[in-house]
Amino acid sequence: MSDALERVSFLGFDVFGTVVDWRTSVARIAEPFLARYAVQVDPLQFASDWRGCYQPSMETVRSGQREYVTLDVLNRENLVTVLAAHGADPDRIPAQELDELTRAWERLDPWPDSVEGLGRLKRRFAIGALSNGHIAGMLNLARYAGLPWDVIGGAELSRSYKPQAATYQRTIAAVGRLPQETAMVAAHNDDLLAARENGMRTVFVCRPTEYGSGQTKDLAPARDWDIVVSSLTEAADALDC
Amino acid sequence: MSDALERVSFLGFDVFGTVVDWRTSVARIAEPFLARYAVQVDPLQFASDWRGCYQPSMETVRSGQREYVTLDVLNRENLVTVLAAHGADPDRIPAQELDELTRAWERLDPWPDSVEGLGRLKRRFAIGALSNGHIAGMLNLARYAGLPWDVIGGAELSRSYKPQAATYQRTIAAVGRLPQETAMVAAHNDDLLAARENGMRTVFVCRPTEYGSGQTKDLAPARDWDIVVSSLTEAADALDC
Repeated sequence: MSDALERVSFLGFDVFGTVVDWRTSVARIAEPFLARYAVQVDPLQFASDWRGCYQPSMETVRSGQREYVTLDVLNRENLVTVLAAHGADPDRIPAQELDELTRAWERLDPWPDSVEGLGRLKRRFAIGALSNGHIAGMLNLARYAGLPWDVIGGAELSRSYKPQAATYQRTIAAVGRLPQETAMVAAHNDDLLAARENGMRTVFVCRPTEYGSGQTKDLAPARDWDIVVSSLTEAADALDC
Repeated sequence: MSDALERVSFLGFDVFGTVVDWRTSVARIAEPFLARYAVQVDPLQFASDWRGCYQPSMETVRSGQREYVTLDVLNRENLVTVLAAHGADPDRIPAQELDELTRAWERLDPWPDSVEGLGRLKRRFAIGALSNGHIAGMLNLARYAGLPWDVIGGAELSRSYKPQAATYQRTIAAVGRLPQETAMVAAHNDDLLAARENGMRTVFVCRPTEYGSGQTKDLAPARDWDIVVSSLTEAADALDC
């Protein structure tokens, strides 16, 4: 095994983008909805626009402007915003349908290597979601996608959002490890930067099509992360799992 | 499937006694320790005495006498108490050894039906620990015993101890269900009583040797619980899993 992870016994995973392909999944689920309400937008663009509201909406919590609310609450609000931006009138759509579409984030397909990779990594490490998703969303997503988490950590435990230090620290404490006994696995350099600042080891998983073929961000490691791979099966290979 | 659980999609499990056999496991792990320090007590009696401190120690938290601390903290304190009660001087035992023995509660063997039963129940229901154990303890125990939880709920999420209402309510909220969409699975009538008071459905699993052959408590259902079985595989049978 790589020396850098020798003392590690817990892997925390970013989920959206790292383990599951939110963009094509949300597009697929949204497509009939968009057609039904004649919203004039390409479903993949719609998925990207919805996701585009993600960071600004979490920032209202991080900044203290509003109290912590779970990610499904933010996603539901952002859905209304993005529908209106594409000329739809969300008030004329039944609330139940908006609720249902918000749950698209619980039915995201894993990348082709994710389920096998997690299963192999789990032989050697305790594995957990360390996501900004809420517990119920992570639970339902895991059951949908077959993600074999040992534990669901992340935002809801700390009522904070990554990259806030509390999100990493609370999960590290909850799993009963020292920071250096944990590693963050993510496709996003900023997530790994914050994880490292909080003492975690780092595994970068390159996901160059998370945002589609025109992706410009996170195409390569921005730092000397401990492990750099292109899939979770490659991560299992690199860690002798 | 039984009508009573028709709307249920999440099963929360009591763990100590219901899923794992703490008594013989703690005795087995403690035996060499007790011999090494010449503590004059039968290991099974020692396990029962240690467990005997469990409810009174949690009561100090429930009553508000002290702030919530995780169960490993209480177990560590109770270990000192029970050693002293058997004539040992805990101050003469290295702290690291006491820490290590406290982790016996993370290496408890499942009842023979538990792993198969949970695996089958998991096909139809989301399953989670709803225990007074802390998250790290439940995580380590699950990996030791092969318990395939989808999620770890329970005491630490609410910083309260069953049968306080908050423990049930916080886990129900965390898994995103209504109370009537959840069921509590336990070998203890008082746990099920509190779960029912909080709107959960109830599954009683009879574990007549949890406390050994002389057990007098929880030998039979004290109320009309929705399901009554003698093992988790029987529970799976009863629920068509």
